[in-house]
Amino acid sequence: MTLKAYNSTLKSAVVLVSGGLDSTTVLAYALSRGYSCHALTFDYGQRHRVELRAARRVCRALGAVSHRVVKVDLRPIGGSALTADIDVPKGRSAKRMARDIPVTYVPARNTIFLSYALALAEVIKAQDIFIGVNAVDYSGYPDCRPQFIKAFERVAKLGTKAGVDGAGLKIHTPLIELSKAQIVRLGAKLGVDFSLTHSCYDPIESRACGRCDSCLLRRRGFEEASIADPTRYAS
Amino acid sequence: MTLKAYNSTLKSAVVLVSGGLDSTTVLAYALSRGYSCHALTFDYGQRHRVELRAARRVCRALGAVSHRVVKVDLRPIGGSALTADIDVPKGRSAKRMARDIPVTYVPARNTIFLSYALALAEVIKAQDIFIGVNAVDYSGYPDCRPQFIKAFERVAKLGTKAGVDGAGLKIHTPLIELSKAQIVRLGAKLGVDFSLTHSCYDPIESRACGRCDSCLLRRRGFEEASIADPTRYAS
Repeated sequence: MTLKAYNSTLKSAVVLVSGGLDSTTVLAYALSRGYSCHALTFDYGQRHRVELRAARRVCRALGAVSHRVVKVDLRPIGGSALTADIDVPKGRSAKRMARDIPVTYVPARNTIFLSYALALAEVIKAQDIFIGVNAVDYSGYPDCRPQFIKAFERVAKLGTKAGVDGAGLKIHTPLIELSKAQIVRLGAKLGVDFSLTHSCYDPIESRACGRCDSCLLRRRGFEEASIADPTRYAS
Repeated sequence: MTLKAYNSTLKSAVVLVSGGLDSTTVLAYALSRGYSCHALTFDYGQRHRVELRAARRVCRALGAVSHRVVKVDLRPIGGSALTADIDVPKGRSAKRMARDIPVTYVPARNTIFLSYALALAEVIKAQDIFIGVNAVDYSGYPDCRPQFIKAFERVAKLGTKAGVDGAGLKIHTPLIELSKAQIVRLGAKLGVDFSLTHSCYDPIESRACGRCDSCLLRRRGFEEASIADPTRYAS
């Protein structure tokens, strides 16, 4: 059997892949569960375009059957340090990160991303979407919580032909209850090469800054998991 | 009081404006209800770019306080005659239009559009979104039904900071139960200049084709409303 013929026997899934540690672990997880994975990455004018290169590397290395990069123009909407001209905060405590919605929050981001995933699922007739949302480290983000995901599943059921016909659509969130250390351990168990991934919000010449929320969470995750962090940090 | 100062006393709303007859009537309706209207138009690689020009004309003429055009790149997703290289069907009967999901259906389109509207509402702190969906003429589109809109309102409530804080968000669908003739009558009552609007899926040198689903519905709507149709049709 050819690889293509073998892939066609598998159940298709749409997997949101940013190129970060979390979404890469999710892709590895979906593949380990036997899904034929169609990766979807968003180019949303984020400052850290190095993330897009990481997404391409990861999809190729792990074996996604397709990889689409969709341009999502959030600049006319504004309101985030990741898309507008606002400074990325550095050196915030874990407590502040968990409590406050940071300026790096992109309004309705997961709603927008899941909408595109839903469109792709409808086109390729997939009934499964995987997304690396996490309610532990990102408890300040309302669109990372299980009840939001449930509500979106209902939108997917009522707003698509497949949903109305009864096939339904499941949104898988394998990381939602995990700490960063647990995510690192899961990724390591699944054989993820973390050196391919990128998490930093504000990289300096392709190197992670080491001090933004995302870098701080990543560093602490590896530390707590007692797994070596292959990331080259600028500080 | 300056116009700007007056506008700031009004309640803000996000209004989805395509430049067509329906969304223009919705904009006129929202303005008549005293909302300060922030218009949002999507440039989704549709073939009928003349629609975007109509949206600009309409927003200016009716008095939207702002107008944003967001590029939504649906081409990597595919699956629609409006964004891919598929022929737009012509001369379909009303019965077939109502029954079948046509090739002009853009997968998950209203979910995607409402997600952006939600993002903008969050940024400008609006608690109201207006959208011209219609469950009568577009009964084949699952994402035009009231239960879909209700489900999306729940996503809006659970997926945004404003929603979680209790402010909530209402999605207004003033046309959802109206026939095209009733929409034409409502627009006329609100003083809409229909010659500014554009509905055709497949215009020929800026003129409406007269035979696609959208033209056929529009023509019949004016006829049934006994209101003169200012559209210049190619056939």
